Amino acid sequence: MALVVQKYGGSSVADAERIKAVAQRIVATRKAGNDVVVVVSAMGDTTDDLIDKAKQVSPLPPGRELDMLLTAGERISMALLAMAISNLGHEARSFTGSQAGVITDGAHGKAKIIDVTPGRIRTALGEGSICIVAGFQGVSQGTKDITTLGRGGSDTTAVALAAALDADVCEIYTDVDGVFTADPRIVPAARRIPRISYEEMLEMAASGAKILHLRCVEYARRYNMPIHVRSSFSTKEGTWVVDSSEIEGHEMEQAIISGVAHDRSEAKITVVGVPDKVGEAASIFSALSEAEINIDMIVQNVSAASTGRTDISFTLPVTDGQAALTALNKLKDRIGFESLRFDDRIGKVSLIGAGMRSHPGVTAKFFGAIADAGVNIEMISTSEIRISVVVAQDDVDTAVASAHRAFDLDSDQIEAVVYGGTGR
Amino acid sequence: MALVVQKYGGSSVADAERIKAVAQRIVATRKAGNDVVVVVSAMGDTTDDLIDKAKQVSPLPPGRELDMLLTAGERISMALLAMAISNLGHEARSFTGSQAGVITDGAHGKAKIIDVTPGRIRTALGEGSICIVAGFQGVSQGTKDITTLGRGGSDTTAVALAAALDADVCEIYTDVDGVFTADPRIVPAARRIPRISYEEMLEMAASGAKILHLRCVEYARRYNMPIHVRSSFSTKEGTWVVDSSEIEGHEMEQAIISGVAHDRSEAKITVVGVPDKVGEAASIFSALSEAEINIDMIVQNVSAASTGRTDISFTLPVTDGQAALTALNKLKDRIGFESLRFDDRIGKVSLIGAGMRSHPGVTAKFFGAIADAGVNIEMISTSEIRISVVVAQDDVDTAVASAHRAFDLDSDQIEAVVYGGTGR
Repeated sequence: MALVVQKYGGSSVADAERIKAVAQRIVATRKAGNDVVVVVSAMGDTTDDLIDKAKQVSPLPPGRELDMLLTAGERISMALLAMAISNLGHEARSFTGSQAGVITDGAHGKAKIIDVTPGRIRTALGEGSICIVAGFQGVSQGTKDITTLGRGGSDTTAVALAAALDADVCEIYTDVDGVFTADPRIVPAARRIPRISYEEMLEMAASGAKILHLRCVEYARRYNMPIHVRSSFSTKEGTWVVDSSEIEGHEMEQAIISGVAHDRSEAKITVVGVPDKVGEAASIFSALSEAEINIDMIVQNVSAASTGRTDISFTLPVTDGQAALTALNKLKDRIGFESLRFDDRIGKVSLIGAGMRSHPGVTAKFFGAIADAGVNIEMISTSEIRISVVVAQDDVDTAVASAHRAFDLDSDQIEAVVYGGTGR
Repeated sequence: MALVVQKYGGSSVADAERIKAVAQRIVATRKAGNDVVVVVSAMGDTTDDLIDKAKQVSPLPPGRELDMLLTAGERISMALLAMAISNLGHEARSFTGSQAGVITDGAHGKAKIIDVTPGRIRTALGEGSICIVAGFQGVSQGTKDITTLGRGGSDTTAVALAAALDADVCEIYTDVDGVFTADPRIVPAARRIPRISYEEMLEMAASGAKILHLRCVEYARRYNMPIHVRSSFSTKEGTWVVDSSEIEGHEMEQAIISGVAHDRSEAKITVVGVPDKVGEAASIFSALSEAEINIDMIVQNVSAASTGRTDISFTLPVTDGQAALTALNKLKDRIGFESLRFDDRIGKVSLIGAGMRSHPGVTAKFFGAIADAGVNIEMISTSEIRISVVVAQDDVDTAVASAHRAFDLDSDQIEAVVYGGTGR
């Protein structure tokens, strides 16, 4: 008997009909001889509705109370799902994050999981029950206050519970058939990736593939918990995210390209005319770090000998743009840079694949494909298993399609799927 | 500095505007120098909406899961109320029943409070915070499952918390100005009762006055916790429910009539032709007790010497009627009664007042007032401080008005109030 942890997002439980469909899938998994633990998000728009309610009584609600409010969402969906399962003749019990032993720090709205102590889940499983657990929420270690985990929180709850319970697999259900070699809305010939390593999935997630959150993949890698990303609308195999040692071919020294990801959610800031002295870059990025701004790519131009000044460009979430400009302007006199340039019309295109660093041909072919598409490259950044370029936002689709074709990722068959974002 | 526990029902927090108004009242109480603990129900129709959702996924949802679902209602209202208070510049923290230490038995949907251990509330009060507590809910002692308290649960939560915290008063806010000498919809000249004893309030509640639940008054009496029933729409004094020793005149040997209550929610069953043998009545009522049916009034006619048979009539909630008939029909052969008669067109009119037992004139005047109104009495039952009669349902209004007048309860001024039922 295997132990399967399943996670269903908000769109999978958006109304009574979908809840009943999910209940049937869960019961089928149970009937196949598995112990089942289900992590569930709030129904459809519940979270947005609750946030609207909060805004009506307070422009800036305290984090503790906002978390108390929002966690009502999963409480509703999990209880309804447990009822729907009971109605199919199987015992199901729902548990809040706190009851399931999801212990977090005290950072309301973006809490981090510190520990998972699922004693009540183990007991309920031992008594033959299907367990339904609220995603996205936990209880803070010190104050015992209710917390929410922030973006990607439900996926992370599922992986963390799976790891703590030593489950055989963590299945993440979504509205697409798995992870694809590119966004099928841009590249209709994109193929489903049957197996991908944690590292490549991390790079995919960091490069804009919205199917799994970085945070949940990081957790899965740390505990070596296999994730199976699949559609809640079919029973097809999806994409397995596993240790690289379990992927055929990975042990051999060849470059295996997983896919092409893109991201339109970033902006670029250029700090123009920075004096080329030791410590200037450090003071820029420590100011941004103090403002809690996450920087992605950084490029520093070679200093012009004539002026002794250089330009530093970096990308960041477009939503952090204003805060970053404010933080930097405060430093203007101390650092003595000349000006700031802000560009939110950029896009990032990334090629992900194991072993590309030792195969220079990969980089050359990637740049060639982008040039062939007539697209200009503004910034470049590379890792062991990824190359990313920043291009004009309007050129993203062409660049993705061209790179996808160049690496022979196009399939013969066009799969009818639509890429969607993950909820929470 | 006094400690005040306030309870607001669902209609008092039905939308953002009302929540803000309640927040202002709470802050005013705080500014007057009091520590404040607030017990709150779910907003307006939230509970009904959640029950509708449950019905959509399961015709007979398990009690544990229904409780998990319904408790989302108070979670939403209490978090919003805490936010609204914070927005007025005062610290407020919300607590679930479980966090507030409301320990219950495991009877889902109708749990009874076993203990209240409000350690977290005490700590938060000590830190200067206003505490908002979810009414109607608790956590079961053994299984640590979330429970709901059933009808009157929020009032009972408030009184129980007030008692455990040794509060100075438990204020129950409602949509009327207090407890009246009769339902003002029937008797426009009814007066607000300024002070009433626990015992009389119990009889009023048991006799159909919907303003406070039996259960919460019983709890208050046991712990001698003063209740102040008042309107959430005004700052007028309402009705104080206190120990009889604190009511002027009660120590003297005179009959003080508090009011006239009525109840249209009962039905009458007559078991016709019961053999007049020892134990027959006992077996009838033990069968009803096993079916968990609450009996109110019981009348056994004098046995007719010619037949050796008697009729036994009793009243019960009309909603239990079918279950009672089924339970009795199962006994028909064993007991050998002749037939059952069911009448749901009855009403109960009760006169409540201390000391009436030792003043036979009270009973005579009450019956006289009902006779004067041309109303026939079908059943009679009395207690130390109450006389109840069953009459035809259509005669209830006339009987109430006539009795109210006979005991000089009519005021010169008509108060513009509307009697409403309490929520949960």
